[in-house]
Amino acid sequence: MPDVHYHDYLQLDKILNAHDEMLFIIIHQAYELWFRQLHHEANSIVEIMSKPALNDNSPELQTVVHRLNRMVTILRVLVHQVDIMETMTPMDFLDFRDMLRPASGFQSWQFKDLEAKLGLKFQHRHGQEYYVSQLKQEHIDLIRNTEKKKSLLELVNTWLERMPFFNNEESWKEFSVHTTIQNIPSFWAEYRYQYQKSLAEAEKINIEAFDEIFIKPSSPANDQQNLSAAALRSALFIMLYRGYPMLQLPFQLLNALLEIDEQLSSWRYRHMNMVHRMIGTRIGTGGSSGKDYLKAAADKHYIFKEIAQLNSFLIERRKLPALPSAIEKRLGFRNEK
Amino acid sequence: MPDVHYHDYLQLDKILNAHDEMLFIIIHQAYELWFRQLHHEANSIVEIMSKPALNDNSPELQTVVHRLNRMVTILRVLVHQVDIMETMTPMDFLDFRDMLRPASGFQSWQFKDLEAKLGLKFQHRHGQEYYVSQLKQEHIDLIRNTEKKKSLLELVNTWLERMPFFNNEESWKEFSVHTTIQNIPSFWAEYRYQYQKSLAEAEKINIEAFDEIFIKPSSPANDQQNLSAAALRSALFIMLYRGYPMLQLPFQLLNALLEIDEQLSSWRYRHMNMVHRMIGTRIGTGGSSGKDYLKAAADKHYIFKEIAQLNSFLIERRKLPALPSAIEKRLGFRNEK
Amino acid sequence: MPDVHYHDYLQLDKILNAHDEMLFIIIHQAYELWFRQLHHEANSIVEIMSKPALNDNSPELQTVVHRLNRMVTILRVLVHQVDIMETMTPMDFLDFRDMLRPASGFQSWQFKDLEAKLGLKFQHRHGQEYYVSQLKQEHIDLIRNTEKKKSLLELVNTWLERMPFFNNEESWKEFSVHTTIQNIPSFWAEYRYQYQKSLAEAEKINIEAFDEIFIKPSSPANDQQNLSAAALRSALFIMLYRGYPMLQLPFQLLNALLEIDEQLSSWRYRHMNMVHRMIGTRIGTGGSSGKDYLKAAADKHYIFKEIAQLNSFLIERRKLPALPSAIEKRLGFRNEK
Amino acid sequence: MPDVHYHDYLQLDKILNAHDEMLFIIIHQAYELWFRQLHHEANSIVEIMSKPALNDNSPELQTVVHRLNRMVTILRVLVHQVDIMETMTPMDFLDFRDMLRPASGFQSWQFKDLEAKLGLKFQHRHGQEYYVSQLKQEHIDLIRNTEKKKSLLELVNTWLERMPFFNNEESWKEFSVHTTIQNIPSFWAEYRYQYQKSLAEAEKINIEAFDEIFIKPSSPANDQQNLSAAALRSALFIMLYRGYPMLQLPFQLLNALLEIDEQLSSWRYRHMNMVHRMIGTRIGTGGSSGKDYLKAAADKHYIFKEIAQLNSFLIERRKLPALPSAIEKRLGFRNEK
Repeated sequence: MPDVHYHDYLQLDKILNAHDEMLFIIIHQAYELWFRQLHHEANSIVEIMSKPALNDNSPELQTVVHRLNRMVTILRVLVHQVDIMETMTPMDFLDFRDMLRPASGFQSWQFKDLEAKLGLKFQHRHGQEYYVSQLKQEHIDLIRNTEKKKSLLELVNTWLERMPFFNNEESWKEFSVHTTIQNIPSFWAEYRYQYQKSLAEAEKINIEAFDEIFIKPSSPANDQQNLSAAALRSALFIMLYRGYPMLQLPFQLLNALLEIDEQLSSWRYRHMNMVHRMIGTRIGTGGSSGKDYLKAAADKHYIFKEIAQLNSFLIERRKLPALPSAIEKRLGFRNEK
Repeated sequence: MPDVHYHDYLQLDKILNAHDEMLFIIIHQAYELWFRQLHHEANSIVEIMSKPALNDNSPELQTVVHRLNRMVTILRVLVHQVDIMETMTPMDFLDFRDMLRPASGFQSWQFKDLEAKLGLKFQHRHGQEYYVSQLKQEHIDLIRNTEKKKSLLELVNTWLERMPFFNNEESWKEFSVHTTIQNIPSFWAEYRYQYQKSLAEAEKINIEAFDEIFIKPSSPANDQQNLSAAALRSALFIMLYRGYPMLQLPFQLLNALLEIDEQLSSWRYRHMNMVHRMIGTRIGTGGSSGKDYLKAAADKHYIFKEIAQLNSFLIERRKLPALPSAIEKRLGFRNEK
Repeated sequence: MPDVHYHDYLQLDKILNAHDEMLFIIIHQAYELWFRQLHHEANSIVEIMSKPALNDNSPELQTVVHRLNRMVTILRVLVHQVDIMETMTPMDFLDFRDMLRPASGFQSWQFKDLEAKLGLKFQHRHGQEYYVSQLKQEHIDLIRNTEKKKSLLELVNTWLERMPFFNNEESWKEFSVHTTIQNIPSFWAEYRYQYQKSLAEAEKINIEAFDEIFIKPSSPANDQQNLSAAALRSALFIMLYRGYPMLQLPFQLLNALLEIDEQLSSWRYRHMNMVHRMIGTRIGTGGSSGKDYLKAAADKHYIFKEIAQLNSFLIERRKLPALPSAIEKRLGFRNEK
Repeated sequence: MPDVHYHDYLQLDKILNAHDEMLFIIIHQAYELWFRQLHHEANSIVEIMSKPALNDNSPELQTVVHRLNRMVTILRVLVHQVDIMETMTPMDFLDFRDMLRPASGFQSWQFKDLEAKLGLKFQHRHGQEYYVSQLKQEHIDLIRNTEKKKSLLELVNTWLERMPFFNNEESWKEFSVHTTIQNIPSFWAEYRYQYQKSLAEAEKINIEAFDEIFIKPSSPANDQQNLSAAALRSALFIMLYRGYPMLQLPFQLLNALLEIDEQLSSWRYRHMNMVHRMIGTRIGTGGSSGKDYLKAAADKHYIFKEIAQLNSFLIERRKLPALPSAIEKRLGFRNEK
């Protein structure tokens, strides 16, 4: 066998390399398929959460939690799927890159629409102009339309605000011992007192954040805030007293939202690394490159971050105020024989 | 809020449960997409391996290994994807099961065609009648057609048989010291000697398997054997001397084949468990149920098992016969300055 | 640079290959660490489930479900961890294999003790003699001791039998319309009737299995049965009516048991494949080899299979008998304002 | 059964919650075990790479690649293992947090030592003071000691600089057609010419980066640069001509380094999210919190980023300069019959 010129193979490779274009197409189709399923789940969740009131004795909340968890499972697979894309080397990608509009292969309107449906507002997006420039007008319109409807985040806000346990101050009267705060249910005055006691010296400043978030919401509401003080108090209450039967599913729901955020974030992160590995800084003009955009987006697009931050305001279980027995009753099963 | 009758929700659920049918559809579409990509990779591999001779100084073998590894990566995601299907409970599945022909949703002709392309023969399939009964005639024909062409397994056999190092007995003359075997290159007589020495008392019987596999192949070849004695000797040689430059990619190739088998097997296994969890023994007639079929198939459909079994015939590296320097030269780079 | 003799490197490799022995040690230490944590979780679950009665209004059941799910998460990592072991090739393993007692590196008494704690009886183990021969006497004694205590499976049986809803026939009187069965709560007579109606012609024989399992348990109980007819009826009821608040956690509990079985099974399966890949049939005497033992064990050691099989006895949600309102009340929250 | 006071369970929980402390301990032990194995692999790689010259006809490079890939496999499991930690809720963590020095549970000196061994310099670390404050003096000394030795990154630099193909300008004389650059091998003058031609209008500025990196390295070398211009040219050459036999393993080696960086980065990222979810902003003083530190570190600690960035300087395969046949010969096998 004679020595062979590698370069001859390159001509062949030129044809073979159409080869990897199919991977590029298939993986994007697979992503779009799963994005469609994610929308299907999100739609059904939004529909249930849009009811004026959920029936605690129905499977509604269970269904919501189940489907949120399914979304998490799907997102995990999507994150894993990046492994497949990474089997394509930059050299392989170069051979058909020119057929793509700059970076466009990496921009899915369905994904952005999903972010909008979950609660990401246009004004909170990073790089709004860049983002718009990558999409067709019809898809921009579609996402705008989604942004006008109630997002899951807004529906969660309403659902949390509806939580009835604090409406009747009478049940809580034993709680106004240490301190009271005007217009705030006495449970929260007491909790604030306990929280403040629990802070180490270096953490004392946290009480200001506590007040900012739970007591005196900026008015008009801060542009960065999506959840009201009342809703955030309910969410914190659920975390603290998750052991009561009636709070078990709500706790699972909040957890599932955080899982979704984490998986979305992992997806953006791996996607960003993959794009970076594939195209480097070639696309882009030294100004805002694809990678820079994706990185900033990954950092900024946490949808349920207000729920995530609540873990800064927990206190130890053994210091938790015991609930009045009237409240305990309402949080539990009948239990009569 | 009045107490609500759960049963009323079932009527609602009846509609909602069309809900899970979409998951069923989407996941199967996703599987078919990836099966298509697996065929794309397998086709290109078969095409390269079909050449009368691979050029060692070309990227051909590297391309084969790269694409086999990509197949492994894809299969890993497919195994993971079963997690999504498992978010559907048996009750959810029941509500649209009747719309499916029995078990048909679980039979992919593309998957069976892939098995055939890799090397699974019809006569080695478990439950041939059941398998045929689940497919349309056009797809059966298509798979039959694939079975008539050279499979990857057959091409690997030819490629291994082609390995040239043993053709020239002259280079190996120093090897005929301990023992010789008629019609067998003297390296292998020596190796057989070393292997026999390495066996513990309880393992002595393994020498019979050694001879069966490497020395005196049943003639005509056993119906269960796809690789010839010569091919299996080459494969074993590659495993033993994988450190030489020219054997590094061949070793990676053999490894990738085993990985593919393992992932295919994992997929069949998880798929089987999932089907079992979903439908129990309801479908099926008390005779051969879907699960029984899948289980037997998972046990039996290892395509590259003859390569896998070679690990029974290795000896310790420090006891490995040193190669003649003429052979060493051919296995290495030029290395002149 | 002169041509170099590969064989010289083998002598070097001989030293380097102590290298892979460390991997062997570390991975086994990692497994034992996690097995210890699995015992820690299992112990706490057994402790809670051992109470004469769980308090529905306490977080007990929630804690059990949470910890079972943690066990699933740990088991998933253990399955994944096999990937690391598989980076060791058979040749690498050979170089220090002789230092190990045959196959002993692959037998963990902690794992077997965990199986026993969950509910695997000695008499249901595959290859009892082989299994005993691989362990030290002190560890055999330890496992025997665990087998004498109440296993999780037995505690689940008791917990399921305790389910109170069927004790009062009065609540169910409307159910004795179609049919009654002596000594069986009328709900189950009705459900049997509905189930039989739902069977397709080819499935009619399933009613015999139904009766075997739920109606007339063999007496004395079949050696293969660990759950009583009453317990299995409760489990089926939980699956059918999982939407009611009081059944939501019990449903999650049953699901978590199935997940544990599935992950244990995946672990045994991958472990078996890995051992096979590593040692082939070298160890073992042509009789019962390590792989054969592991394979049979993987097939046979499903601990919660009686729960898994219940999915054969479900009917469509819309055909489910509506529960009497007295029962519905007990399954729900108080819901008074 | 009477209604039960949830608060009574909290006292019980107080004891049960020692429960989760064990998880905290076990997972950290598991991490340290694997960090130890990573060091073991890294040490052996460093030892091989420290030789004055690698023998291309030995398995040395193959061993290096194999062990780097094993490190990747281990890191993937470590990333996955974060899932287990995340089964611990913030409330569960709070109950034993006080027993830990602030955040100290999250700082592993072995991990930092590994970063140092791979090539992360103290002066490139984010938050040097914070980082030092979290470690014991003996461990700081240990890491300092590692920093003084040759890191893998430095050894890779030397290895790349050693690549001999450009030493003899004679072989490349046909390449000085379009352009020449003083003191730069003519291949690179030609490649620069081709690269510049390939740039789209918006990318023209990239040629400045090209020159900065490959042609006129800042002298004395930029503090941020660890790889010399000559080393980076070799790395680029490997990527471009990876199809030649002699470049196949070097290409795999470079790829494995990028994989390690990616997995390290994923680990830091998930670890950061996990810490955030666990402790929020409670620890820390509003100044540099644990999360802020980890986030900046995750962004900054890419060790092999200079190799990653090379993908910005590739050109399409079909435009690649054909190599002189003398060079081709040296990159291939002997191939004589």
